[in-house]
Amino acid sequence: MLKLYYAPGTCALASHIALEEAGAGYTTERLDFKSNQQNSPEYLAINPKGRVPALVTDRGILTETPAMLGFIAQSFPKAKLAPLDDPYAFAQMQAFNSYLCSTVHVAHAHRVRGYRWAADEASFADMKRMVPKTVGACFALIERGMLKGPWVMGERYTICDPYLFTLAGWLEGDSVDLATLPKVADHRKRMSERPAVRKVLAEELTPA
Amino acid sequence: MLKLYYAPGTCALASHIALEEAGAGYTTERLDFKSNQQNSPEYLAINPKGRVPALVTDRGILTETPAMLGFIAQSFPKAKLAPLDDPYAFAQMQAFNSYLCSTVHVAHAHRVRGYRWAADEASFADMKRMVPKTVGACFALIERGMLKGPWVMGERYTICDPYLFTLAGWLEGDSVDLATLPKVADHRKRMSERPAVRKVLAEELTPA
Repeated sequence: MLKLYYAPGTCALASHIALEEAGAGYTTERLDFKSNQQNSPEYLAINPKGRVPALVTDRGILTETPAMLGFIAQSFPKAKLAPLDDPYAFAQMQAFNSYLCSTVHVAHAHRVRGYRWAADEASFADMKRMVPKTVGACFALIERGMLKGPWVMGERYTICDPYLFTLAGWLEGDSVDLATLPKVADHRKRMSERPAVRKVLAEELTPA
Repeated sequence: MLKLYYAPGTCALASHIALEEAGAGYTTERLDFKSNQQNSPEYLAINPKGRVPALVTDRGILTETPAMLGFIAQSFPKAKLAPLDDPYAFAQMQAFNSYLCSTVHVAHAHRVRGYRWAADEASFADMKRMVPKTVGACFALIERGMLKGPWVMGERYTICDPYLFTLAGWLEGDSVDLATLPKVADHRKRMSERPAVRKVLAEELTPA
């Protein structure tokens, strides 16, 4: 049985949705970021990085969203969440997810987690001012060429879709105008109507 | 025939080494970052992100190091650069590479590319001061638990190794004391003795 550690409002949502779409048997454990539970000794024993998501498997613990999404797709091939027999198509999918984690999520994180990379309040304010522009530029690139439509990789729903949906959910908070991103907005709407997404969001948004 | 776009001193080195280790047929094209060639209209047509690496294949163009490394391993299975038939082991490998791209490389980039996330000179200086600490913390985590030894994933050389080697090559520039990282230092030394690595470095370091 798989066990997912998550916190509401984080990128763990992508793996949570993917597990549900895959029809996987899994349980979840919610961390309370307000009490800094992700840095408790108990959780650091699970993920020394002090971050979510983390996925406990029979073999050991996996972290990092793109790797976990790939694992879910490969472990539940019947769900057809990835082109498993086509290295080029698989790499295209992984490239999209890698861009989300290393560029888009990072740009977003400068709004409220500037302390990861700087020490002065003035720097945090400076970083925060840049976020609408940097996150906006990332999503403009996604809108213009990376999101093929109707799903990220085209006709086929893949593990890119819950990940894009997760990060697109932060656009209003990052002051990026969704009206400039019609394809992204359409994708977000269609994602939010999927039964798996509704079920996962209902769980994550239920007060502890 | 594959074609790799790279620039010396960048993370493209990881894919360059992996292509060589895979015995792939490939050519290379070097970009001149000093003249900002990565943002020329010609290159932006290849990679709209204006970054390296980019890999031209018969099917299309791939970007993002973890995806490219996975593609190289899957496309040249005889080179045994990844555990291709074991989703958990494959995900462990991808998780390591995802950490390198989304956390380690990002921490490093704040030393000289602060303009990506801020606008003021004071912020750049603040970010730069944090780099020895942030990159040092990343590599302490790698040293303590992620680098199994002798190779990243243990006895078997994988696509994690050229990527770690590439980022570990930036430690002196980031003012991280290599003496505190004996396993990383040992890994770097053993990597530098591999014929594929020597050949690739000789090419990348030859003046244009």
